Amino acid sequence: MADTLFYCPDIRQNQILPEQESLHCIKVLRLREGDLLTITDGKGFFYDCRLLDPHPKRSTFTILRQWKKLGKRGFGVHIAFGPTKQMDRNEWFVEKATEIGADRLTPITANFSERREIKRERLEKIAVAAMKQSQQAHLPDIEEMVRLKDFITRPFTGRKFIAHCHDLPKSALAETYRKGEDALVLIGPEGDFSEEEVVYALRNGYEPISLGETRLRTETACLVALHTLHLINAITTK
Amino acid sequence: MADTLFYCPDIRQNQILPEQESLHCIKVLRLREGDLLTITDGKGFFYDCRLLDPHPKRSTFTILRQWKKLGKRGFGVHIAFGPTKQMDRNEWFVEKATEIGADRLTPITANFSERREIKRERLEKIAVAAMKQSQQAHLPDIEEMVRLKDFITRPFTGRKFIAHCHDLPKSALAETYRKGEDALVLIGPEGDFSEEEVVYALRNGYEPISLGETRLRTETACLVALHTLHLINAITTK
Repeated sequence: MADTLFYCPDIRQNQILPEQESLHCIKVLRLREGDLLTITDGKGFFYDCRLLDPHPKRSTFTILRQWKKLGKRGFGVHIAFGPTKQMDRNEWFVEKATEIGADRLTPITANFSERREIKRERLEKIAVAAMKQSQQAHLPDIEEMVRLKDFITRPFTGRKFIAHCHDLPKSALAETYRKGEDALVLIGPEGDFSEEEVVYALRNGYEPISLGETRLRTETACLVALHTLHLINAITTK
Repeated sequence: MADTLFYCPDIRQNQILPEQESLHCIKVLRLREGDLLTITDGKGFFYDCRLLDPHPKRSTFTILRQWKKLGKRGFGVHIAFGPTKQMDRNEWFVEKATEIGADRLTPITANFSERREIKRERLEKIAVAAMKQSQQAHLPDIEEMVRLKDFITRPFTGRKFIAHCHDLPKSALAETYRKGEDALVLIGPEGDFSEEEVVYALRNGYEPISLGETRLRTETACLVALHTLHLINAITTK
């Protein structure tokens, strides 16, 4: 694989690099007609390609070979979270989640949310950069913001967990989660979920969890939950 | 415990709040003579105290009670890392490491390091803020920058691991590490360690490890290593 990975979500329809990618390819890396490049569709595939017409806005190329990395993750991960007020903390989480691996990220608004809107396009851009940087072919699906109450009743085939700080019975995620299970983890905003919201989630099939002994910031909790799922899957003895 | 946690490293010697803490206590929270406050020494202890003389620069107090949280971590964690060029990524790691829990953090310089100096005081400030925010009493010991070659030959009682990207045999950290062991993990700079540096570490008792299937940024690798150790210790079945 070449050092630079390009992103072209519609590669199967059109063999044209998007504007930003063309610019980088032609003006920064100065690739020329006939040069080889590796492109991903963000859906799990890599493509070895040959540059046909170098153009700073719409370079065309031809696909030589389509391939996948071996050892694809055997479990699905969906993290839904109350975004923090400071936007860089959300961006940071999206970057790390893309590096480590996640299928879907959903920003939600709850009673105590301090942030009630989010620029999805900005988060997507960060995810694309992180995917390219870590040489992966999987882009997490970043959803539009959803109200918690609407989100909770959505169907999900797999185990649904809710992390919260209320003094109610809960299990450690690392103990209750089992290898290979698809999981959805719901993490509250900085002010946590209200007790009413937690109860509503429990009534809708969510299992209450804790993520360790220390009090974590929202974005740290998101990352710890995500990495816990990965690690349980990586440990062969469990 | 009160909502705000204050930090006073020399509390056993002098019952005087440091300047920044006094300012916050008196000017922001407007505490008065006789009010209760919780203070930590960053060495594992909390202190319930009563404010004697409110002063914006040097408030005095009296200690009512000294206490510890139950369930102290049964393993030691030391992360040594090549700091990234972008300073906010290093700061971010120090914040997260403090939240999750680490005993010692050592910035190192290696052959391919892009950053060869670091403001220790700035990192310490971030660690103090993170400790207070997560209501913990443990401040990681942040060391001055050390040259890799000098660091590698230092004695350490516990297992020493080196994470690198070279094509040499290695084990997954999650598989080889065992609950309760003290661990030191060495993570390279953005340009990784040179092969010569890796070999030198292996000759000095370091075990080569990988942290998963995806290519991680330096600061993500640091966090993933730290959380892996915590999680293996949290899983009772292992």
